[in-house]
Formats: sequence, C-alpha cells, structure tokens
Amino acid sequence: MLSWKAKRRKVGKRIPKSSILNPKSYPVIALFDSGYGGLTVLKSFLKVLPKYDYLYLGDSARVPYGPRSPETIQKFSEEGIQFFIKEKVPLVIVACNTISAVALRYLQKKYSDQIKILGVVRPLAEYAAKNSAKKRIGIAGTRATIASGAYKTEIQKLDPACEVIGQACPLLVPLIEENWHHKPETRMILRKYLRSLKTHNIDTLILGCTHYPMLQKEFQKIMGARVHVPNPGDIVAASFEDYLQRHPEIEKKLTKKGTQKFLTTGDVDRFEEFSTIFLEGTKINVQKIAL
Amino acid sequence: MLSWKAKRRKVGKRIPKSSILNPKSYPVIALFDSGYGGLTVLKSFLKVLPKYDYLYLGDSARVPYGPRSPETIQKFSEEGIQFFIKEKVPLVIVACNTISAVALRYLQKKYSDQIKILGVVRPLAEYAAKNSAKKRIGIAGTRATIASGAYKTEIQKLDPACEVIGQACPLLVPLIEENWHHKPETRMILRKYLRSLKTHNIDTLILGCTHYPMLQKEFQKIMGARVHVPNPGDIVAASFEDYLQRHPEIEKKLTKKGTQKFLTTGDVDRFEEFSTIFLEGTKINVQKIAL
Repeated sequence: MLSWKAKRRKVGKRIPKSSILNPKSYPVIALFDSGYGGLTVLKSFLKVLPKYDYLYLGDSARVPYGPRSPETIQKFSEEGIQFFIKEKVPLVIVACNTISAVALRYLQKKYSDQIKILGVVRPLAEYAAKNSAKKRIGIAGTRATIASGAYKTEIQKLDPACEVIGQACPLLVPLIEENWHHKPETRMILRKYLRSLKTHNIDTLILGCTHYPMLQKEFQKIMGARVHVPNPGDIVAASFEDYLQRHPEIEKKLTKKGTQKFLTTGDVDRFEEFSTIFLEGTKINVQKIAL
Repeated sequence: MLSWKAKRRKVGKRIPKSSILNPKSYPVIALFDSGYGGLTVLKSFLKVLPKYDYLYLGDSARVPYGPRSPETIQKFSEEGIQFFIKEKVPLVIVACNTISAVALRYLQKKYSDQIKILGVVRPLAEYAAKNSAKKRIGIAGTRATIASGAYKTEIQKLDPACEVIGQACPLLVPLIEENWHHKPETRMILRKYLRSLKTHNIDTLILGCTHYPMLQKEFQKIMGARVHVPNPGDIVAASFEDYLQRHPEIEKKLTKKGTQKFLTTGDVDRFEEFSTIFLEGTKINVQKIAL
C-alpha cells in the first residue's frame, strides 16, 4: 500500500479516489449534512463533548436535499457515506433531518458491516416521547421531513398514545441562509407558520430541521412559556454521549485532541460565510472535495 | 451549409435514444426553464403569439439552478438542449435568466448546427438600452444572474453610456414558489431589496428573473411612477415575433394549432400546482420525463 505522501504525489492536486485524509484509519466523530444546517448540531457536540475530534462534511454543491425525491436523497447521501467508509471513519452522525427521515434505514441496512450510522430523528423522538406530559407533540420541519412522517412513526413506536402534529415551514431555510433570521419579516412568517400548531394544545415542539435552532428563541416566544422548545442539537449530543458510555469499545478508539476538520462539495468561501452564521462568529478552514 | 433535414439526419446519429413525442419532426416553439418561472414567459407568448404550438420543459427535479456553479448550470442546461434536439424541435427559447446569463453562449456555440437557441437577456438588454432616456437602468435578479454581470455587458455593448445597477433579490423565488407573493411580508422584503436601487435615480427597472413578473405591480408601486417596470415576458415575446418576421423560413415551418405541451423532470403534481400560480388559474396536463 502506498503511503499517504506517495499517494499525494501520485494524484497531484486532484481529489484522489483513495483516502485524502488518513491512510490507515481516522477515528474521529464524523457529521454528514446536505449543507450548512448540521453546523448547529456540531455546535452542540463541541459544547457537550469538546474533547473529541470532528470531521464535518457538507454536500453544499447539491443542497437543498429537502425538495428532492427519496431516491435522489438516498443516492446523494449514499455517496457521502461511501466517502466516510473510504476515509476509514468508524462512525457517522447524519446531522440532517431530511436524510435521517428519508434515507437512514436504507443506509444503515446497506452499510452496517462497514460503518456505524446514527441519525437525528430517533434521539429527538425519544426525547419527545419521554418528556411530553400531555402526550401532544409538535414537529416543525422541511416539507420533505414532515411529508415523510418519520417523527410521527418513531414517536408512536415509543408511545402509541402520543399525538404528533407536523408543520412544514419551507421558507425558514432560505431566510436563515440569507441571514435574515433576526429581521421582523422572519418573525412574521414564523408566526403565520405556528398559528395552526398553537391551536393544538401541544406541550413540546421539536425543531425537526437543523437550521431552526437559529430561530429557537423566536419559536419559544411565539409558542409561549407552556410549550417546551428544546435545542435539538443539545438533545442529539446528549444522546450520543450516552451512546459512547454504552459503547466503550468505540469510545476508546476515538482520538481526543479537540480538533475539527471541515469539508464541502461546494464553494469554500460560501461555506466559510455560512459557518460564521451557524457557529456564530467562529472562523473555520474548509477544504473542497468531490463525492 | 446543411439543410435543416440533412442536419437532422446528422443529429439523429449523435443522440441515439428515440423521440418520445414525435418520430419525424416536431416544429413547435420550445421553451426551456430550470423549473416553473419560465411559465410567466410562456404566458406572454400565448398572449402575443397565440396561434403557435408550444412545448415547455421545466427541469424541476434540479431546480433551482441559481445557486449552482456555472459548470453545473452548463451541464444541466446542455442535457435540456440535447432533449430538444432528440425531439427534432427546430428552435428553443431559454426562458430562464440564470441559464441565459451563465450558459447561453456555450450552448449556442456547441449546438448551433443542430438547433436554434435564443435567450431572454439579449431582448431585455435591447429594450432597456433603447428605452432608458436617462441611461440609468436597474436589474433585479437572482444572485447568479447579478453576479454574472450579463445584463451590464449586453446593455453596454449596445450603448456604452448606460449605467447598469444590479440588485440580487434571492428570497423572492422561494416566496413566490411558496405562493406568498401577495402577503405583506413579501412586500416588506421587496421594499428592503429595492431601497438601495431607489437611490440610484434609474428610469427603467428590468425584472431579470422569470419569477418576478408575479410581483410586477409591487415592484412598480415601490419604485414609483417615474420608473418604468415592464413585463419582461411581453418584451421577449414581442422580440420573438419580430424574429419570426425576419425569419420566414422558420416561421412557415412552425405548426399553428394553438396547443401547449408541458414536460417536467420532477413531480407532476407539484408542477401542476405551480402552473396554477404562474399561469393564474389555467389547468394544464404535465408529463414526466428524464434528462
């Protein structure tokens, strides 16, 4: 087998088919997203589990996955998973509700012998089923996530008595990506989206899109103090912390230097710009790759 | 120069997959768009040139093209053009500002011996250069269209004395596609976008995105009576009427039964839903194809 340096010489500046990061193994926590939203999940991981090393891949060239067909979402996310397998990453968290809702089962089934794949829907569903006293739960998400019914299915598997009311909020992603989330127009639009949810007497609202934590305070304010609107990234990170405790054989493998590496399939400058919005000021370095 | 028929024989060899619409020739006016916006252009064509037959293809599976790289926009639109060549359509109007601004020259160069390709930027630039008394012209468009500088280049080719001021309005497409264009939030957002354009003392504003005619009245109201905000579809249709008068050899070939055919690469129901918004109530039949 060629050494990493030899490989680099051979391929020159082009993105090589073999590993671009590490020739033997790369025991970091990988996060995969269709674009930028997963950065809110990473932010929670850095807060809850700061000692580990992270590799974030955003398929920004093909964002948004939300309006695409399930087949296309499966195909695109599969290419992301194959990238991580090639990089010899032991485990990947799909930090995107659309992929988690539409393609996770498919990916887990197909690649279970090669890589551990975790999603965001399951931990959020567990949290909601456990914490909703009234058993009336709202879900806000993209059109694809709401249409998939994934949250409803997962929550009712855990507790069939739970009522789950979904609300698609399709304009929020473009508004947040345009950095308009602090403007009054966004609050007005959000208020209209939540109007019908407010009539359903829910006590827990799950932000089922990784962009929405950027509007968490606004969601909370509109829903009122009687509705709990937790930060979904924090729940996913806490659930993963628990997972690591239950799987010491994985935990002990993971490197612990507190570093982060960012990869994008799209425009590097635009990724850096978004990361400043999503990680609130943190400057990062991004590398471009092809899937 | 090869005759049209001889050319067609030559073409047939290059694109082997058989036609799905017509085995021999299909002499209709084709409109190609990344999705739904081009329907506003078709609407003007049906008003100005109602006797002809139309074939509309929206690549809705891959909409929006706007945020993509020029290479991707070229590749995707090329597949659309190849489809029309296979269908033996004599002529296609690229009813999309992003494709016209970013890929038209490339497509015309590559396929000029197989199909006539017309865009929307040139006729709008001609109109603006001719009609702006103050020679101060505003362009509203997607980020990709404004960044390309295509309108500025075309207008200044025609009249180097013209000042051209661009304004990207990236939230308008999602707002219109969500059918929010009559809501107050959209007017507020539009007012913010146009704030800086209003300080530039322009007398003509070109709506350089096929979605924006849905907001023509709002644009006009905000810009005030001294600024002319024409319907871009009407200008493109009038320019095409003139083109047909100058090219009777093409005009006489075109069938004149007043029919329209709609194709999409995406979801048929969603296309029908959008067509109701864009064609304002007209019910249409849509067929799904793959590119």
